[in-house]
Amino acid sequence: MPTAPTAAAPEKRAMLGPTTLARHFAQVRAASLALAAPLAAEDQVIQSMPDASPTKWHLAHTTWFFESFVLEQNVPDYTPHHPGFAYLFNSYYNTKGQMHRRPLRGLLSRPTVDELRAYRDDIDAHMLRLIEQRGDEPQLAALIVLGLNHEQQHQELIVTDIKHALAQNPLQPAYREPIADAPTTLHPLEFVAQPDGILPIGHAGDDFAFDNETPQHQVLIRPHALANRPITNGEYKAFVADDGYTRADLWLSDGWSTLNERHWQRPLYWHESLDTSFTLAGPQPLDDDAPVCHVSFYEADAFARWAGARLASEAELERAALNADLGDDWVDNGRFHPSRSTGDAPLQHLYGGVWDWTHSPYSAYPGFTPLAGSLGEYNGKFMCNQVVLRGGSCATPRSHIRATYRNFFYPHSRWQFTGIRLAKDIA
Amino acid sequence: MPTAPTAAAPEKRAMLGPTTLARHFAQVRAASLALAAPLAAEDQVIQSMPDASPTKWHLAHTTWFFESFVLEQNVPDYTPHHPGFAYLFNSYYNTKGQMHRRPLRGLLSRPTVDELRAYRDDIDAHMLRLIEQRGDEPQLAALIVLGLNHEQQHQELIVTDIKHALAQNPLQPAYREPIADAPTTLHPLEFVAQPDGILPIGHAGDDFAFDNETPQHQVLIRPHALANRPITNGEYKAFVADDGYTRADLWLSDGWSTLNERHWQRPLYWHESLDTSFTLAGPQPLDDDAPVCHVSFYEADAFARWAGARLASEAELERAALNADLGDDWVDNGRFHPSRSTGDAPLQHLYGGVWDWTHSPYSAYPGFTPLAGSLGEYNGKFMCNQVVLRGGSCATPRSHIRATYRNFFYPHSRWQFTGIRLAKDIA
Amino acid sequence: MPTAPTAAAPEKRAMLGPTTLARHFAQVRAASLALAAPLAAEDQVIQSMPDASPTKWHLAHTTWFFESFVLEQNVPDYTPHHPGFAYLFNSYYNTKGQMHRRPLRGLLSRPTVDELRAYRDDIDAHMLRLIEQRGDEPQLAALIVLGLNHEQQHQELIVTDIKHALAQNPLQPAYREPIADAPTTLHPLEFVAQPDGILPIGHAGDDFAFDNETPQHQVLIRPHALANRPITNGEYKAFVADDGYTRADLWLSDGWSTLNERHWQRPLYWHESLDTSFTLAGPQPLDDDAPVCHVSFYEADAFARWAGARLASEAELERAALNADLGDDWVDNGRFHPSRSTGDAPLQHLYGGVWDWTHSPYSAYPGFTPLAGSLGEYNGKFMCNQVVLRGGSCATPRSHIRATYRNFFYPHSRWQFTGIRLAKDIA
Amino acid sequence: MPTAPTAAAPEKRAMLGPTTLARHFAQVRAASLALAAPLAAEDQVIQSMPDASPTKWHLAHTTWFFESFVLEQNVPDYTPHHPGFAYLFNSYYNTKGQMHRRPLRGLLSRPTVDELRAYRDDIDAHMLRLIEQRGDEPQLAALIVLGLNHEQQHQELIVTDIKHALAQNPLQPAYREPIADAPTTLHPLEFVAQPDGILPIGHAGDDFAFDNETPQHQVLIRPHALANRPITNGEYKAFVADDGYTRADLWLSDGWSTLNERHWQRPLYWHESLDTSFTLAGPQPLDDDAPVCHVSFYEADAFARWAGARLASEAELERAALNADLGDDWVDNGRFHPSRSTGDAPLQHLYGGVWDWTHSPYSAYPGFTPLAGSLGEYNGKFMCNQVVLRGGSCATPRSHIRATYRNFFYPHSRWQFTGIRLAKDIA
Repeated sequence: MPTAPTAAAPEKRAMLGPTTLARHFAQVRAASLALAAPLAAEDQVIQSMPDASPTKWHLAHTTWFFESFVLEQNVPDYTPHHPGFAYLFNSYYNTKGQMHRRPLRGLLSRPTVDELRAYRDDIDAHMLRLIEQRGDEPQLAALIVLGLNHEQQHQELIVTDIKHALAQNPLQPAYREPIADAPTTLHPLEFVAQPDGILPIGHAGDDFAFDNETPQHQVLIRPHALANRPITNGEYKAFVADDGYTRADLWLSDGWSTLNERHWQRPLYWHESLDTSFTLAGPQPLDDDAPVCHVSFYEADAFARWAGARLASEAELERAALNADLGDDWVDNGRFHPSRSTGDAPLQHLYGGVWDWTHSPYSAYPGFTPLAGSLGEYNGKFMCNQVVLRGGSCATPRSHIRATYRNFFYPHSRWQFTGIRLAKDIA
Repeated sequence: MPTAPTAAAPEKRAMLGPTTLARHFAQVRAASLALAAPLAAEDQVIQSMPDASPTKWHLAHTTWFFESFVLEQNVPDYTPHHPGFAYLFNSYYNTKGQMHRRPLRGLLSRPTVDELRAYRDDIDAHMLRLIEQRGDEPQLAALIVLGLNHEQQHQELIVTDIKHALAQNPLQPAYREPIADAPTTLHPLEFVAQPDGILPIGHAGDDFAFDNETPQHQVLIRPHALANRPITNGEYKAFVADDGYTRADLWLSDGWSTLNERHWQRPLYWHESLDTSFTLAGPQPLDDDAPVCHVSFYEADAFARWAGARLASEAELERAALNADLGDDWVDNGRFHPSRSTGDAPLQHLYGGVWDWTHSPYSAYPGFTPLAGSLGEYNGKFMCNQVVLRGGSCATPRSHIRATYRNFFYPHSRWQFTGIRLAKDIA
Repeated sequence: MPTAPTAAAPEKRAMLGPTTLARHFAQVRAASLALAAPLAAEDQVIQSMPDASPTKWHLAHTTWFFESFVLEQNVPDYTPHHPGFAYLFNSYYNTKGQMHRRPLRGLLSRPTVDELRAYRDDIDAHMLRLIEQRGDEPQLAALIVLGLNHEQQHQELIVTDIKHALAQNPLQPAYREPIADAPTTLHPLEFVAQPDGILPIGHAGDDFAFDNETPQHQVLIRPHALANRPITNGEYKAFVADDGYTRADLWLSDGWSTLNERHWQRPLYWHESLDTSFTLAGPQPLDDDAPVCHVSFYEADAFARWAGARLASEAELERAALNADLGDDWVDNGRFHPSRSTGDAPLQHLYGGVWDWTHSPYSAYPGFTPLAGSLGEYNGKFMCNQVVLRGGSCATPRSHIRATYRNFFYPHSRWQFTGIRLAKDIA
Repeated sequence: MPTAPTAAAPEKRAMLGPTTLARHFAQVRAASLALAAPLAAEDQVIQSMPDASPTKWHLAHTTWFFESFVLEQNVPDYTPHHPGFAYLFNSYYNTKGQMHRRPLRGLLSRPTVDELRAYRDDIDAHMLRLIEQRGDEPQLAALIVLGLNHEQQHQELIVTDIKHALAQNPLQPAYREPIADAPTTLHPLEFVAQPDGILPIGHAGDDFAFDNETPQHQVLIRPHALANRPITNGEYKAFVADDGYTRADLWLSDGWSTLNERHWQRPLYWHESLDTSFTLAGPQPLDDDAPVCHVSFYEADAFARWAGARLASEAELERAALNADLGDDWVDNGRFHPSRSTGDAPLQHLYGGVWDWTHSPYSAYPGFTPLAGSLGEYNGKFMCNQVVLRGGSCATPRSHIRATYRNFFYPHSRWQFTGIRLAKDIA
């Protein structure tokens, strides 16, 4: 069973001071290795689809990020660890030069896991030296904090990508031992009215946030109610049983095409019996009372239509999340699977567990300005064809999330821990 | 040279009375045939890509719409004109039953053009009889008016689809004789400040509008300015010359992928010399002072970034269009190509010429309710992955447009007459 | 109902004399037009798969063959009928310059059927003038005879390609009226021992033959017996009923892959009921006593294995055909469908009806020399990956065939009138 | 540097006796592991194309062959080592049940290399016990000898597949240290006349041979001459320099299509400078005097046409090889790259170095009978669309080859060590 990565909390302010920054740096970097620890070298090589990447690629790419954006800019006469790594481990920064094509990542047996560990050690040593010397320079510290947040995003992808890879194996191997969910009482699904009006959303202030969360701005929020908790497996089974996957009238046109091309009949990883699903603990009984996950936006949208409701907007979810409790359904708990919704809050499980699909296309906030230079490619260029998700998941590091956080995926994507939160207009 | 279809103005109110409705019906139906008149039977069969349809398919499908949604529902003991036509000419109404797959439309040599003409005549006779008898029933009249607006949409597609088909032919055949543009003076590109605040958009009232234009609702419009006219071919050439198609930093990620996969280097139909373009009058010199057209959203967005501006939102364009003049750059003028921007209005050419790409993803307005039954598939199910366009084009019937009109296409689509209107935030 | 093309017999000797050559030229050219006569202009445009071509393309390409290989070489100052036709109507003669890509042939609405008729008339006039003047020159006459044989090959393709195109149409339109087969008595399937030893095959002498039939050479033919007639639909149904399409052990590896990818469960054009098949007379009852047709080599080979036999070699069939009767199951009879096997010969139906798949890969005969120049591309370059067929079919002009004739198609091809003749080794 | 696998010579007669058989078994099995020894675990997982398989798959599949075809049939109450392995490691024996799809082999991180080593050890122990007890039973011994020959075939694939995989890596990693070729004098290319007439080819007698080498039979061999040695890199460069890859007239039609689709401009692994090529010792200078390798049949055929010659037939090469010396250009020498042609024989290098493409389609010999049961799928079902190669290569175990040996690949395949031996007809 993997050691649960220690809950790191690196970046609540851009200005941390060298000592704190160094500690956070070490914690985040260690958390990545801890996620890889249960894996064989063989596991870390394979790429099960173009959307996913091998574990060792994630470990190398996050390292390259520090090397390329921090060390090369700030260490005089810096010599790259290996002349070929910039080409291999650049993900999508076109302005940083040519790169290895994404679908080919699974063909790279070299550098080996051991060689990449040496790469990480080397870059970490350089980084810690730099932090010690100049960790109090605000711009540099902010860049390092960005790199740590970037690494946390890839920690989530390590989890979701290896789950997808192991699921392709007919032997259905497990990444960890199963942990039973605590017995709980499921609250009936209810809709809870929320405040409306002209209200601010988006990030303001000095704490770290990605550029796509800015600027803070006013939005018009209409009268609405939010579901008190995510949709469960049991509720989703009712949709399946009611011919949810064969009734065209429930689906967006592109969703219906996708369903037919890919022969979708249930959420990803569900066994056709609807009794078990593949998890990182191997095949496990499907818990009717746990949140449904691994559904696409198309499925979430069709479910909502079937249920006589709609998905929430990102503004509605952000406002609701502002004062909600983070809970403990994060990658830090070592379960790697969403837990049942619990607690007495009117809106349960707004954070962690499963990412909530919204109906909001991923677009720039009014007045949005991307970061300067190559880092400007971080977020802005993806603002087309994708959909916003909110709240984090059981694969997200707890210290990585906040109310204004905007995740985004294509509407057909299902390999993230994505679920459904319903909403309704109020007359 | 084709006879320019008579400017029909069928549907300003849902309640027209049988006589007026019958006249409008006849005018719109005749306009479709007028568009097909210059074509050989051979031209009307071919389908040059899955997005496009053969001319004769459009002529049949619009007829099937009346047969299926009007006659079958309202004429006692109605017998379909042909038992196979419902299967062949249903476009995408899944709830109306099985249908012939779209990419296969170009394989249908039968029914022939003459057989389809007989089909149209038969349905028209039935329809006129029905209108005479019951054209004063509001619901029925509204349904017929919807059918006429539907047919006008396909009139635009007849033009754009046959342009694409003829362009594939190495002989570069013309659909009509060229008509020279009147000499004009091009106004320099300027940005004109527009009203902001909380303002209504969307359709209200009894006049015809599609369901996706409703309900009227308040939006928050921020301080901004709009370009005084569309971008011209000459201005777009400067973007091409400035390596616009090879600089990754100017493009959305999906746009950059599309550009590379499809080897885009200029707008659709431009010759590589940048001196001529294929038009419905065959290859013609490229007019530097006319609006650029046949660009995708990705190209429009990249151009705007290059120009230090942005695309407008659909709300901004709707507000600006409310009191603008319709002009005469419509399919009715028989040119089938956008004219130069003219006139003294602060904002020229808001209507006609080229559809303006907005930066607004095509989504439901708050409180949107689709039509009941199969007609609910008309608009709502496409509200994902597409982008709103505004204002109509030189292929749109003049009587078809209005300020609240929402057109939508995928961001990679280029075969419509689509162009660029810039906007800017004002501090 | 189409007029059956007159049985032309153009080319038994390369040296015919101008008058005979002119008559043969006119007959063959007229036969092509007769095949197109029952078709609407719309039918002649469509291309239902990359392997097939539109009718009007065949009519134009065979004309271009005369223009390009005869007129341009032999008429002083010859001006091509249209400067674009060489590009459009070259099929695969790479050494003749660039050509329009094959899968795009169905996008060409222009030239229209009428324009191509004018093209044919123009070239025919030139050709007849040239034949009158120089038809007694052996080399020129031989070239023209080659062109006529080439046109006859395309006559067969006109039939098979339009059958495929019409079959895609859900309306299942007919090309001609059905003609009932004469009542006959089916002979039981028997194997008839044939001569063996070192025997000559291949063409020798002055009569016309394609280069791939030369040179005549000795082959070693082993003791064997041939089936007395082609396999019937009824016999093939037994194979289907005996799980012929689901037993991997009966199939070649590439055949099994093809079957699975294309979901083959029966011959092309058979209805899933196994009771009817699509014919050029529209859907018709499947005649158990008629030869099975539209099977691929893979199916023929699997059937043979199931039947405890094998397919014949091309040498075996050629020797058997040397003295066989041509019969009348050719395109000339206007049925466009194979008739039942009849007659008293020990080996029925060696000619006409269905092409017999052999087990012989299509290769060069020892000492084979292709024609000089561009015509060298006629046959030799296809001698890889294809399989030889023998005997002609109900879509072949009777005057086109001979014992040494080698047809060839890919082993997965099914749209020709292809059937099964079994053979067996004799100990 | 890998230890060169010991030259094993296991199977000259089916009846070896238990002791000899056990020794041969151990030698062949050890040779496979020796080939994998230089590889990291990561290297053994990846699959660079559907045609190739991961190293560890080869190691497992050859083991499964013994388990499935020998142990399960002959060991009472045998329990499979792992219930999932039959599904994972069956290659193509459809009659042995369902199997994992070939293109997915690179997604299997589990079983790990270590787990597969344990699998091999377990099966080896069972096998050696069985050999000790019953190794003198002729049928059982023959089956085991077949399994050893099967394993040797996969040894060659281990070499060629890992070469392809490492070549995809931009780091161009080496499998072994380079070994310089001994200096030699290249003999000028000459054609040496060979015996003709009616001559026997094919295997007869008790020694091991694959079923596809039988039965021995007479063939008619025409007067011809064979090139005295394989074509060299230097000679092939002249073909490239003479526009060999841009002249359509030199190529078979399918070859020309393949060349254009895959953008071939030189042999696989050649650098575009034509100065170096990727080898298992990493990028190395291209030796003009060494045999060209990694050419497809299409390239070999085009080269022959350009050179005014042709490829040999398989019968011609078999007759020539009957009394030729095996030489030492085999996998046993540890170079993993073809050496220069040397020696005083009139025909050099008929064995080893590079497989010689013939012009013979891979077909059944007259009277061919496949093995009974699932082993009947070994060879016969591939007798379509492939081409015969002769003589073995630098990746073949020396003890594996013989004059009658028939290898076969698709005409587009280039990742084997395949080269060119010219032939000519003699008048």
